[in-house]
Amino acid sequence: MNTLYNGKTKSVLTDDAGEVYLFFKDDITGEDGVFDPGSNTVGGSVEGKGKIGLTISKYFFELMEKNGIPTHYLGANVDEGLMHVRKLTVPALEFVLRYFTAGSMCKRFTLDEGIPFDPPYLEVTLKDDEQGDPLISERLCLMKGLLKEGQYDEALDVLVRVGEVLRDELAKMNFTLIDFKIEFGYDENGKIYVADEITPDIWRIRDENGNIPNQVDASKLILEKIK
Amino acid sequence: MNTLYNGKTKSVLTDDAGEVYLFFKDDITGEDGVFDPGSNTVGGSVEGKGKIGLTISKYFFELMEKNGIPTHYLGANVDEGLMHVRKLTVPALEFVLRYFTAGSMCKRFTLDEGIPFDPPYLEVTLKDDEQGDPLISERLCLMKGLLKEGQYDEALDVLVRVGEVLRDELAKMNFTLIDFKIEFGYDENGKIYVADEITPDIWRIRDENGNIPNQVDASKLILEKIK
Repeated sequence: MNTLYNGKTKSVLTDDAGEVYLFFKDDITGEDGVFDPGSNTVGGSVEGKGKIGLTISKYFFELMEKNGIPTHYLGANVDEGLMHVRKLTVPALEFVLRYFTAGSMCKRFTLDEGIPFDPPYLEVTLKDDEQGDPLISERLCLMKGLLKEGQYDEALDVLVRVGEVLRDELAKMNFTLIDFKIEFGYDENGKIYVADEITPDIWRIRDENGNIPNQVDASKLILEKIK
Repeated sequence: MNTLYNGKTKSVLTDDAGEVYLFFKDDITGEDGVFDPGSNTVGGSVEGKGKIGLTISKYFFELMEKNGIPTHYLGANVDEGLMHVRKLTVPALEFVLRYFTAGSMCKRFTLDEGIPFDPPYLEVTLKDDEQGDPLISERLCLMKGLLKEGQYDEALDVLVRVGEVLRDELAKMNFTLIDFKIEFGYDENGKIYVADEITPDIWRIRDENGNIPNQVDASKLILEKIK
């Protein structure tokens, strides 16, 4: 296996046949910028976190596919920590959906926590740690060649559908989905797929008591529910 | 006169009759955030800057009115450094128009300087030094009670008209307008007016040699042209 890209919490690997795999690491993300679900953690590493994340991703990607939402997921080998994925072009963008105000957004705009958004509030950010993942408009995405005409609105439509599936599934587990972010990838024909991962690293949830568990606790709680 | 508000480069005063005046100070703005026309200066104070700024504002507000664009300007007493203005509610927003990429925008999105925008690129930012004047959407402006339904798009329409008048006038002075920001105020009936000031503090221009003069130099150059 060759390493194509070594990220903060995952690596992208490829085998001799050109197939692509994500390896889930045991590392925890720190603060982010516009979207900050991990800001209640301190970074670092937790043994087993990679396999837990992969197990949860497998569950939610399969759930998305069942609901007719195309994803990059092709299979998973949890023992090896590997997820087999489609070979896609993934623009350096994150698509954020908020059902409630929370975190950095409240600070940035002096808003109370927990104000509901109906319909959900959608944001697109450029993945750029140095610049704090700034919000980016459709026009700049086109100008920078990150997306093609029509793909911005299409991605927001898919984002809303992902949100509905995710919110309903988490509700069954007695969690309220506050916000989440996902990435999209495109095949050579420009078809859209949900990419990256679907784990507690990408969302913020509230439990029945109104508490927001950190990434590690949330992972354990979700894992219990899907086992 | 009583001081209603003491800003970085201007104070808002009121007399016994309840009339409102802006006093133009000699201070220079520093870096700004999303919009940074002053980032090539170091802050500080320049004697006479206030009166120069007032003279230039007077010229451009009168030009706007001549072109049918409503402004808060009612008159000016340059010797006293005072501009008589309408009593308006001015939301803590800045409306930015860009004819070319420049400054912080290029850094934020890794873009070259001087890429033209046609139609111009429009942004709305929340005035909040601590948060670096973040971009704000129409939906959040409504949610925060900063604007009423329809006022966001209306303001962008007026912004474009202000840009056309400003660009054409500066072109006559052999300057290319790169970008600028303005504020809007609203009377009790919700009618919109261009507020604040119209000086080299609010725009970035390029001279015939392609150089971008700083605020102080730009003020002197413009003053010569309008005398």
